[in-house]
Amino acid sequence: MTDVQNRHDGRGIKIFRTGVTEVCLPFLIADGEKVQQVVAKIRFTVALVDNLRGTHMSRLMEILTDWTQAELKISDVEKILLDALEKLSTDFAAITFAFKFFTEKFSPVSQKNSLSAVDCVWDAELERGGRMKFTLGLTVPFTSLCPCSKEISDFGAHNQRSLCKVRLTFADAEKLSDVSIEKLVRLIESQGSAEIFPLLKREDEKFVTEAAYQNPKFVEDILRDTVLALRRVENLAAFAVECENFESIHAHNAFASHEEILSEVSS
Amino acid sequence: MTDVQNRHDGRGIKIFRTGVTEVCLPFLIADGEKVQQVVAKIRFTVALVDNLRGTHMSRLMEILTDWTQAELKISDVEKILLDALEKLSTDFAAITFAFKFFTEKFSPVSQKNSLSAVDCVWDAELERGGRMKFTLGLTVPFTSLCPCSKEISDFGAHNQRSLCKVRLTFADAEKLSDVSIEKLVRLIESQGSAEIFPLLKREDEKFVTEAAYQNPKFVEDILRDTVLALRRVENLAAFAVECENFESIHAHNAFASHEEILSEVSS
Amino acid sequence: MTDVQNRHDGRGIKIFRTGVTEVCLPFLIADGEKVQQVVAKIRFTVALVDNLRGTHMSRLMEILTDWTQAELKISDVEKILLDALEKLSTDFAAITFAFKFFTEKFSPVSQKNSLSAVDCVWDAELERGGRMKFTLGLTVPFTSLCPCSKEISDFGAHNQRSLCKVRLTFADAEKLSDVSIEKLVRLIESQGSAEIFPLLKREDEKFVTEAAYQNPKFVEDILRDTVLALRRVENLAAFAVECENFESIHAHNAFASHEEILSEVSS
Amino acid sequence: MTDVQNRHDGRGIKIFRTGVTEVCLPFLIADGEKVQQVVAKIRFTVALVDNLRGTHMSRLMEILTDWTQAELKISDVEKILLDALEKLSTDFAAITFAFKFFTEKFSPVSQKNSLSAVDCVWDAELERGGRMKFTLGLTVPFTSLCPCSKEISDFGAHNQRSLCKVRLTFADAEKLSDVSIEKLVRLIESQGSAEIFPLLKREDEKFVTEAAYQNPKFVEDILRDTVLALRRVENLAAFAVECENFESIHAHNAFASHEEILSEVSS
Repeated sequence: MTDVQNRHDGRGIKIFRTGVTEVCLPFLIADGEKVQQVVAKIRFTVALVDNLRGTHMSRLMEILTDWTQAELKISDVEKILLDALEKLSTDFAAITFAFKFFTEKFSPVSQKNSLSAVDCVWDAELERGGRMKFTLGLTVPFTSLCPCSKEISDFGAHNQRSLCKVRLTFADAEKLSDVSIEKLVRLIESQGSAEIFPLLKREDEKFVTEAAYQNPKFVEDILRDTVLALRRVENLAAFAVECENFESIHAHNAFASHEEILSEVSS
Repeated sequence: MTDVQNRHDGRGIKIFRTGVTEVCLPFLIADGEKVQQVVAKIRFTVALVDNLRGTHMSRLMEILTDWTQAELKISDVEKILLDALEKLSTDFAAITFAFKFFTEKFSPVSQKNSLSAVDCVWDAELERGGRMKFTLGLTVPFTSLCPCSKEISDFGAHNQRSLCKVRLTFADAEKLSDVSIEKLVRLIESQGSAEIFPLLKREDEKFVTEAAYQNPKFVEDILRDTVLALRRVENLAAFAVECENFESIHAHNAFASHEEILSEVSS
Repeated sequence: MTDVQNRHDGRGIKIFRTGVTEVCLPFLIADGEKVQQVVAKIRFTVALVDNLRGTHMSRLMEILTDWTQAELKISDVEKILLDALEKLSTDFAAITFAFKFFTEKFSPVSQKNSLSAVDCVWDAELERGGRMKFTLGLTVPFTSLCPCSKEISDFGAHNQRSLCKVRLTFADAEKLSDVSIEKLVRLIESQGSAEIFPLLKREDEKFVTEAAYQNPKFVEDILRDTVLALRRVENLAAFAVECENFESIHAHNAFASHEEILSEVSS
Repeated sequence: MTDVQNRHDGRGIKIFRTGVTEVCLPFLIADGEKVQQVVAKIRFTVALVDNLRGTHMSRLMEILTDWTQAELKISDVEKILLDALEKLSTDFAAITFAFKFFTEKFSPVSQKNSLSAVDCVWDAELERGGRMKFTLGLTVPFTSLCPCSKEISDFGAHNQRSLCKVRLTFADAEKLSDVSIEKLVRLIESQGSAEIFPLLKREDEKFVTEAAYQNPKFVEDILRDTVLALRRVENLAAFAVECENFESIHAHNAFASHEEILSEVSS
């Protein structure tokens, strides 16, 4: 049967990325000692040399299907990409996994436990002969309370759910096994006016309400505190932060973003 | 050229609705004296008799395209449906338009004006020989402040953006020209703890913050007050209400829904 | 600490549904012999009597959190609802779980296996003293090929990805343990022009292309064939079907929907 | 009334972008001779110096509200940004408008006209003392037909709706008045296997079906042809292209992306 993809192409364009996207598969994700099954949306692409017409996309699906059976640590993603380099005869491969990751939360007073979901993205690239460049994306919810509203009002202060979205690029692929998603989630959720919880009894609700009122923060305050916190994270080459407050007094959102390069990614 | 749709079908099933969906077109919507251009997502369907294989969907697109030129009042929707009954030789037609509708808002103290968008849905059905059954959907934002949080906390109270989604089915097609989207939006947005605005100067922010604090409402309170308000709307045959609070202390929402039938739709 | 929710309400409105929505939690779902972990979006609501001001929503979160530990069959959902009736002192409870469910697929020629996701919804209601009313929602993808395009064209025929969305309400709660999600998915996906697969080698792609070309179907054909198939499913009280073709020759979709009541739900 | 935003901040972090997002407003967009009203989602941000605590976001809303009254050409966006630099006392401002833009389409044989929507994004940045950097985003639908499927199958070929998403950064702000959204849409939609149309009569459907069958293209072919076409567009400093085929034989998509820098943006 003819291999149409394998035909010569004369347009002289090396394609940066070609592959599959919106693939939905379950994976077993290991974070520290804990393992959890996640449902991931995946984009899996490779570079295509300038003289070939197409990629063999079914091979990308075969690689992915194989890995749904195994436990997957961040450092294992490099093996998936090496597999792609070889099976697709290319010098660059990239993969993005996006999934809900659950962490345990204990209510602040009643200590009742429940599970909280954060949006997690694993974004990895590999050039032949180099080391994987890995970026972790986390979108973490908390509450924010407006310092201006608190100060100018005789009582109350508007507050709202907020999301902080970080992208963390690590410097040294050797140390990726030290990355703890759970610890990073804890670090980020402590930058808002107060943490939020799936399960709050009355005494917990009083605690969260008062904690937020005593810790008013603009979206700019949350952004700056998150920047200060991320500068202290080990093994970071770069980070980007976006904070968004779903303003309770508007139908639009307040937003702030920032990014910094801290060091080179070693390759 | 063969008309494959027009062939005989032997499965004996009359299809309730067949047509086009996710059509995107601009329309000129008239509400009272005011006319505004909207961008609508449209579903346009007809019944199909049991002995024909398919509908002629391009005729639905032709009807829609014709109406993008004209000014469209709610009562005109019946003409679109009559057009469909005739051009598709059927005894039932239905159309749904979903669009952003803008109303003017004046900030409560500074009186600065701005434009506020609400999600608006026009949902209409017509059986041959009858009158159009029309349902208006509106999704209106406001702020809600939690009575429990206010009472149990020494200071502050959690509050958040909320959406109230109503569906109003009118009783008498003759009186559809009396429907004012803008007035109904006003009625609904006054059921929250406080109205919200696109543009708030400091004196306005103080006003909204204090107004919400002085008017705490559970999602159930908002629902009940909306039910009481809707019972007084003229020409209603039925309504459904859904309220959703985007809780600032949780990553999930508080929700309440209700529906009532008030009278028959006259046909 | 004051129980504000528990206060008397004088508006005289019994609320149909109040509770939590957009809750995200992992569950272990059992389908026949197989168990899989899913990530579910949940709406969990109860009725509220006319003389109480609010529901205790944290109790709904406690019930849900307890069930994330256990294996959950469809018939177990009744236990969750009974729990809600008791812990929230109400006479009606309803719950909706929406999640991706994976089934194994073997490519038609190469027999390579992979995992295919379908959108699955469990929708259950319980009135005190009655039996659970259960509706299963499934959204299943396949390919459709247009009979008109095939017949009028000298070569080729437009085809596209399609989704068939069914909602199946079962008659007898006693027989819910016989429901097989996987079998129902198989039944529905066989109603398109051809099944689709996550992983297709060249010989499989030839097979699927030719299979679709030899089995052209309008959206109305798919709807009618699905109706015929569902009429033969055991223990159904009612069903609703929506088919949508993501037309390759338009930016909008072709759509057809239908519903039938087959018997009473026994209670 | 205290100006809390205006207080001194000691964290020493200059914030890249802070402002409002998810703002929804109507605008009158001029493209060549034609003017159309659009409904835009807007992100409007400014830089914040390192020693101030917060931005005055209501001023951004005032600027936006003023411009909803006027006709807006691409080159006018610089005036909005200059307004922001001045009213917010900052040295950097950025704005993104995302909206549906309609172009007229004439069916290929019957010549019936209809309106086709493309997703359009205006993305502009201005540093004090420089010229606006402007990027136009367009997402254009067409049909793609698989060359492999056509060649290996005895009859038929799988085809599907595809989207091509380009981002075009212009080199010279002086020449932005020459940009024609409509012409760029035409250029991009001609890179697929065949153009698609909102309204197709039978003779048109035959035309589109046969045109696609005679012009099979992989997602990589479409990407490369789009790259060749964009290299010839005048006044481009850089472009990025993403093509996505909503595969009719899979539930996931085929994807390819590429970007090139052609020249410096003059400032």
